[in-house]
Order: sequence, then structure tokens, then C-alpha cells
Amino acid sequence: MNQKTQKPAQIRHALTVKREDDFAAWYQQVVSEGEMAEESGVRGCMVIKPWGYGIWERIQKIMDAAIKEAGVDNCYFPLFIPLSYFAKEADHVEGFAKEMAVVTHHRLIADGKGGLMPDPEARLEEPLIVRPTSETVIGAAMARWVQSWRDLPLMVNQWANVVRWEMRTRMFLRTSEFLWQEGHTAHADRDDAMKETLRALEMYRSFAENVLAMPVVAGEKPENERFPGAVATYSIEAMMQDGKALQAGTSHYLGTGFAEAAGIRYQSKEGAQELAHTTSWGVSTRMIGGVIMTHGDDDGLRVPPAIAPHQIIILPMLREDDGDEALLAYCEEIRRELLKLSALGEPIRVLLDKRPGKATQKRWAWVKKGAPIILEIGGRDAAGGMVSALRRDRIWREDAKTNFVGQSREEFVAGVAALLEDIQASLHREATEKRDANITRGLTTLDQVAEFFAEDKRYPGWVELNWSRPTGDALEKVVEQLKALKLTIRNTALDAAPAEGLCPFTGEAAVERIYVARAY
Amino acid sequence: MNQKTQKPAQIRHALTVKREDDFAAWYQQVVSEGEMAEESGVRGCMVIKPWGYGIWERIQKIMDAAIKEAGVDNCYFPLFIPLSYFAKEADHVEGFAKEMAVVTHHRLIADGKGGLMPDPEARLEEPLIVRPTSETVIGAAMARWVQSWRDLPLMVNQWANVVRWEMRTRMFLRTSEFLWQEGHTAHADRDDAMKETLRALEMYRSFAENVLAMPVVAGEKPENERFPGAVATYSIEAMMQDGKALQAGTSHYLGTGFAEAAGIRYQSKEGAQELAHTTSWGVSTRMIGGVIMTHGDDDGLRVPPAIAPHQIIILPMLREDDGDEALLAYCEEIRRELLKLSALGEPIRVLLDKRPGKATQKRWAWVKKGAPIILEIGGRDAAGGMVSALRRDRIWREDAKTNFVGQSREEFVAGVAALLEDIQASLHREATEKRDANITRGLTTLDQVAEFFAEDKRYPGWVELNWSRPTGDALEKVVEQLKALKLTIRNTALDAAPAEGLCPFTGEAAVERIYVARAY
Repeated sequence: MNQKTQKPAQIRHALTVKREDDFAAWYQQVVSEGEMAEESGVRGCMVIKPWGYGIWERIQKIMDAAIKEAGVDNCYFPLFIPLSYFAKEADHVEGFAKEMAVVTHHRLIADGKGGLMPDPEARLEEPLIVRPTSETVIGAAMARWVQSWRDLPLMVNQWANVVRWEMRTRMFLRTSEFLWQEGHTAHADRDDAMKETLRALEMYRSFAENVLAMPVVAGEKPENERFPGAVATYSIEAMMQDGKALQAGTSHYLGTGFAEAAGIRYQSKEGAQELAHTTSWGVSTRMIGGVIMTHGDDDGLRVPPAIAPHQIIILPMLREDDGDEALLAYCEEIRRELLKLSALGEPIRVLLDKRPGKATQKRWAWVKKGAPIILEIGGRDAAGGMVSALRRDRIWREDAKTNFVGQSREEFVAGVAALLEDIQASLHREATEKRDANITRGLTTLDQVAEFFAEDKRYPGWVELNWSRPTGDALEKVVEQLKALKLTIRNTALDAAPAEGLCPFTGEAAVERIYVARAY
Repeated sequence: MNQKTQKPAQIRHALTVKREDDFAAWYQQVVSEGEMAEESGVRGCMVIKPWGYGIWERIQKIMDAAIKEAGVDNCYFPLFIPLSYFAKEADHVEGFAKEMAVVTHHRLIADGKGGLMPDPEARLEEPLIVRPTSETVIGAAMARWVQSWRDLPLMVNQWANVVRWEMRTRMFLRTSEFLWQEGHTAHADRDDAMKETLRALEMYRSFAENVLAMPVVAGEKPENERFPGAVATYSIEAMMQDGKALQAGTSHYLGTGFAEAAGIRYQSKEGAQELAHTTSWGVSTRMIGGVIMTHGDDDGLRVPPAIAPHQIIILPMLREDDGDEALLAYCEEIRRELLKLSALGEPIRVLLDKRPGKATQKRWAWVKKGAPIILEIGGRDAAGGMVSALRRDRIWREDAKTNFVGQSREEFVAGVAALLEDIQASLHREATEKRDANITRGLTTLDQVAEFFAEDKRYPGWVELNWSRPTGDALEKVVEQLKALKLTIRNTALDAAPAEGLCPFTGEAAVERIYVARAY
């Protein structure tokens, strides 16, 4: 290679932290070195940088199509919710009151010390909440829109920012402000609402598996983990590489509680006034944290091709001499050729990275960002009709250069769609195998569970237990026992095997299976 | 037609207000009857309904592609801006301080009266502003990202909600919360920054003309109308059908003021520390208000095909009898056939409206929403291979039914792409002719201007004046004189003819031409 030599110490090639040494520090480094996001200087809020936001745009595009396909209409509802709206549903407000950003003034004035302060004359009569979720304000709209059974089901969705004042934040996983979609639907009866709740859950499951290449368990959350005000909450749960669970999407059957609070009533075919049954369901930028912790390796992120903003990076090995023109022309030809192809059901996305800079530095930047295929092309390649391709999911860490496979341009182009599809499938397979290998079954007592999680394994994974599904105080006791072990109940898989034996918590006959794990 | 007859009085077919009788009331009715948006119950905030939001999604899609094409990267920055960030640029904070939503608390507690209140224990040390615009928080990020001349230009954009606490609000035109995109760029010098400012302006001009079919004047705003903190502000100005001007997009050259406040400095090629020159530019949901007031007629909205969520509505005349099945099959065939076609450079968007309901009611709903083509198909049409097509932009108001053109299905399909393109072009032509006919030139004294706008014409349109471009106090005097006539200076067109004669305000030699108008 002919670019100016540079002292290795000046280039930060790889990550400095390995997953097995400090998973949390590794995560932070991937987010930072992969140029996904950074601290904004505003408490708990992050700046999502182009590569991270590009992944979110891909998620939005594919999820939005699935939402529309289901007959749900996109709308937009206010950022602010009057306190009185929020207070109508008791469980709901109790669940969120501790973490809400409250707007109290609508003007600033000079504070007499050269600075500014909220103008006491411009205090709002009723404080406004920055939406942590929109059931209440959307419920108010639904109450206006629904009159007759003919208006049902009413199905809307919005892509929006929401705010929950989290005390301990972590980029993508838990931030004070985050981006999400929230679907809200109203139905004539429980059956129809439950059908929609499960449809949304299945949409999320399928999206996680097929688009994010992230295996998940779709199931019902226990009573204590329900959304505030919900009758039933379902989730998709993914296992991160440290064995912890990540709740990556939720779908709620809300019964008639929110309809009653907002007044969503309809005249039935028989002429009676009935309360609607509502649902809500959402996924957020948190999914990106899940992708990082599912697919990242010790070189950085590995982005599944379906959500990679660019699937193929063409890196010309520029020499800043006369040869560059021919090299760039050759790269541009390949780019145009690739743009005509499709993979995973969409046109291939290619970037020709012509920016100035050292080739090794640029290569490592794309490795850390996790672009699925990196195509390095030097002057000799251009002259001989060749390319060197790196498959990011199978990098051999010690010397990335030796991972590049030299091949003819024709050969590469002919195989690239299959290659992208294979990368997508391989990432899913690898993650599924890892997940399945870290689910432990057959523990039958709480002592066994305690012993299992007390072992000197940093990443014990999940345990599947049979239980009797206690409620109320009995459930509270179970939750406390698990909390002492830093464990939580994740969910009961929809496709779980029948329960067996006795409940380790109550000693009663088990009625279903649950996953128990440490969690984000 | 065979649908059940219904007493006309029971159906609210058309609008009840005409443009010439009460333009403001007409606007409100189009927004409401066209199911574009509605009041949310939250002060100054609207709910954008599916048809209105669908238009916004079309605007986003096309504008986003143009922004990306220019090499600008999408990111996401925090909703909240610490007061101290905002206060760094004096003009900027002064311009916005009077209309900012201020977050002061992060938790609610019981108020002892059965309600909730902000928890005095959870008062923020530093109040947070809900962003009215993001120069300051993006400037802080740019200061981190820019070190060397190699990092410039730095060009980012975000699609976001912003809040300006407006006292008098009107849907889409002026709401407390609105949706927009804001581009922010940093450059090495004035020339490069000014080039970008004008590139963004031209992008907006071209978008307004070619996509919204809305003729605009692209030009520079006078000093008194600059964005708070800007060195130069450019706008696109459109003429509404009441003759008023609507500022539909702005692009600002910010000089080095924001760079200095945020510390955006770079090392030049020569090794010196220099301040970057920044720009910002944005368009918002206000554009939708412009589309309504440019293209709406006394039957409701007319949506240009380029931004219509559905360009063709297929309306089967269902009879709720055995014939419906064959009719629906025929409609479905046509839908599939149309989906294979493209118009205006994109696949055609078709909706088969199978919902129950009276055919006339459904027809009028789509007329009011302004779908470009409505295709009514009855059982006899289906049997004979025919369709009846309504071209929304040329409706003859008294009896919409007679506007439908019966033709063979083949004939319609063969001509539909050209038809959509002709509708797009016709709307643009019609609006341009109307605009041009309402610009008055040749007034040379302030008395003439006063007389012109005092005449008993409700919609006098715009006046083009030659002026001497006064600044400071002299400009203030002009602004006051115009204000007394309820007039404002809109902008100086980039392609304006050379100035002529004397300035009607100062008596000095004119140096440029300005548009003077009433405005939204």
C-alpha cells in the first residue's frame, strides 16, 4: 500500500475493550467508536450520529411498511399532555409520575444577574407533561372519532419522541428522550382487541428475527411487569451476549380502562352504548442497543445487511497521484453495477468512500461501524479487473487485511446478493445458537436457581422455570425473592411447552413456564 | 346509480363557506372537512389526521431524498436545550425568549387535593427549554466534531418537532408545536457557507414549484425580518388565494456568531485557528397550509398528485347484493393494473375504497380531501369493461356527478400517467397565473401604496416596489409605516429586475426591488 506511512500509535484501529473483560465498557466503546451516538451535554439525552440514525431510518422504513400493511394509519398527536388528561387513569399516572418532564412556564425573562429565568408572570395554569407515552391524548382523540360500531376498529400509529426522566441512562438502552413508534387501536370487544395485541406482537417478533437477525421470545409478561394501566402486556425478549435479557418491544391489551377514562364509547349494532377495548404497542431506538449487544464482536458492531445504511463500502486505495483517476473510474463503474442489483428484496445500498485519509484508518472505521461488506480496490486491482472483499461477519481479528478475498470483479458482482443474504442468515443463526446454548432448563427449586446464578459465571444466561403463576401478594413475594438474586421474570413464551412438576416458589402444581434472567 | 337514495339534507356534501365570502373560515372548513387535522384539546397543538399526515410523509420522502442527494447526513439531537446554551447568542435568545416552553421539574407528586403537582423536591437546577430551533445544541455538537479544515463542510439535518409558544395559532400555519426539518452546516469560509445557504434555498424553491405545484419567489428578507442571530435570511414566499403572502421556507447564513457562541473552530491548512461559518435552513408542516390555500377550491382541497397519499381512489358502487362480488373483483383487477404503472417518476398510488357507506357520501369525502382522480365503478361498468373518472382539479361544482367521464378501462389505464402529470402541471399553471395576475408594479409613492391597499378589494395581492434598502432606524421607520397599513416586506427576489427610480420611503435612488404584502 502506498499511502503515507503513519505511526500505528496515532491510529486507533481496534477496540481496546473485549466483551468478556467488561461488557458494559465494550458496549460504550462500540457506540462511540462505531460513531453511533454520543452524549449531548443535555442530561440523559444523546445525539444520534449519521450511522446510528441511518440504522434507525432503515428500521423505520421496514417497520412502517409492516404497520401500514396491517391497515394502521399514521397520525401525529401533541408532544404535551395536560396533567388532567394524565391523571384520569390511576394506575397509569402512578406508573409514570416519578419520571415526567413538566413544563410550567411559557416565557423567559432577565433574572437581573445577566441571565434568564422562567417568567413568573408566564406560569401555565395547568402544567403540561412532555409525553412519556400517548394513551391519554390519543384516547381523547379516539373519543371524538368513535361514535358507532362502524368506526371500529380504529387503528393509528405515530412515530415520535417521548421523554421519561430516567435516573441512570445508557445510550440507546435507556435515555431520557427516545424515539419510537406507538400504535394505538380501539375495538368493539375483547376478542378483537386481543387479536390486534397479538398481531402487533407477531409483527415485532418477525421483524426482530428477520430484519434485525435477533432471535426473540414472544410471550406474556407477568402481572407485576405490566404496562401501567394494562390488563395484559406481551413482549419480545432477546438475549444479549452477556446473557442478560433485553425487552425489545411490547404490546398491551388495555381492556376498557383507558376507554373509560377518555370516554371512548360506541353505539353497538343493537343500539347500546358500549366502551371500546383498546390496545397499544411500541418499539423504540432501544432496538439499536439490542442489535449492538446481539451482533457486536471485539472489533465493533456488525450490522445485519437488512438494516445497514450502506451494505457495501467501496474503498479505493488512493495514492494521491495520476493513477487515482483510473482507480476512481473503476470504482464508480462497480458502484453503478451494484446499484442495479437487489438483495433481501430491495436495491443494494452502496457507498463509494472517496474521502481523503489513510486507507487503513478508513478500513478500520468501517469495520468498527460494522458495514456488512468492505471492498478494497487498489490500482493493481483496477488494472486487472479485480476486487478484494471483506465479509464483516467473519473477520479474523488479528490482521483484518488477511481477511480480504481477492476475486474478479465479475465473480464478486455475480455473488454479492447471495453473499448479503448469507451474512443476514449467518448473523441470525449465530445469535440463535448462542441464545439457545444459554438457556438452562430443569431447575426445580429456588435454591438451585440461587446456586446457578451465584456460580462464578459472569454470563449465566436465562433459566426456564415451571411455576404456578401466583398473583397479588404471593407474586410480590416471588418478585422480592428474585430481586434478591438480581433476577426478573421476563415472560411466558406463547409457544412454551406445557408446564411440568411443582412451582419452585409456591410448591403448588405448575401451570406455565417462565424465563428468569438478569435484564437491561 | 343503484345505491339507496338518501335525502340530501342528511349528507353534508360540499363546504358551506366559499373562499370569496370568508377565506379564513373557508380554510378552517377545508382542514376539518378534508380530514387534515383538528384541535387536540392541548393549547395551540393540533392532531394531524391520516390524510394530512400522509401528505406530510410524501413531503418528507421527497425532501429527504433531495437533502441526502446534497450530501447532508440525517442525525437526531435532543429535544431539550439547557437555558445556558440558549443564552450564549444574545440576538438569538432575545428573538425566542418570549415564546419558549420551559421544563422546570422532573417529577409529579400528590397535591393533597386528590390531584397532582410538580414535586418541589424535583426542581431542575437549570431549566430546560423545549427546542424552538436547534442552532445552539447542534452548534455544541459541531464544536466537538470539527477540528480541522478536513472536517468541513459538516452538513447535518434532522426531522423533528419544535415548540414556539404562539399566542394566536392556526392549524398548520402557526401552531405551538410543529414538525419540520432543520439543516445545519458549518463551513470554512463565508463563500462556502453562502453557497450552501443559496443551495438550500434553491432546493426549497424547486420543491415548492415542482412538487407542491406552488409558485414561489425566492429571495432575501430585509434586515428586520432576519432570523434572530442571522447575518442574512432568505425565504421562499408564496401567494395564497386571498392575496396574502406565506413564507414557506427559510435559509439563513449565520456568519460566525453561532460558531463563536458554541466554539466551532478549526485549524486551517495554514495552521491557524479559525471560526467556522454556519448556516441553517428549514421547512415545516406550514407548507401543508400553503398547499391548501394555494390549490383549494370551493369544494375543498385539491392535492397535487406528487404529494397525494393516494393519487387514484377506486370507488365501487356497492349495492349490498350478489353483484358486489363481481364488481369488487373488477375493481381489484384495475387496482393491480394501475399499481404496475408509474407517473411523475414514481409508482402510482391507488386506494380501493371498499368501506361500507353511501356512494355519494364517500365520493364527496374524497372530493373534499382532494384526491386527484376518483374512479367510480358500478355493476354496469364492470360488466361492460368501463370506468367513470373524475378529475378533481377541474370539477364543475354544481353537480359533481356530471363531471365523471365514462370511458373504457383500457383507455383510462393507457392515459392515466399522462393525466396525473397533467393535473400536476395544471395546478401549477393555474396558481402561477393567479399569482402573476395579482402582483402590481409601478407604484412610486407611499400614498399610492396606501391607496392601493385601502381600496375595497379584499385580496389586493402583492405590490412590487423599488427602494433604497435603508437600514437601522431608517428601516424601522419604513417598517412602522408599512405596519400601519398592515403590510410587511416579504423579500427581494434573487432574479429581480434592476431597480428603477426613487425609493418611495426615503426619496433616495432605489437599489433593489421588494415585494410588499399582507402576510400569514
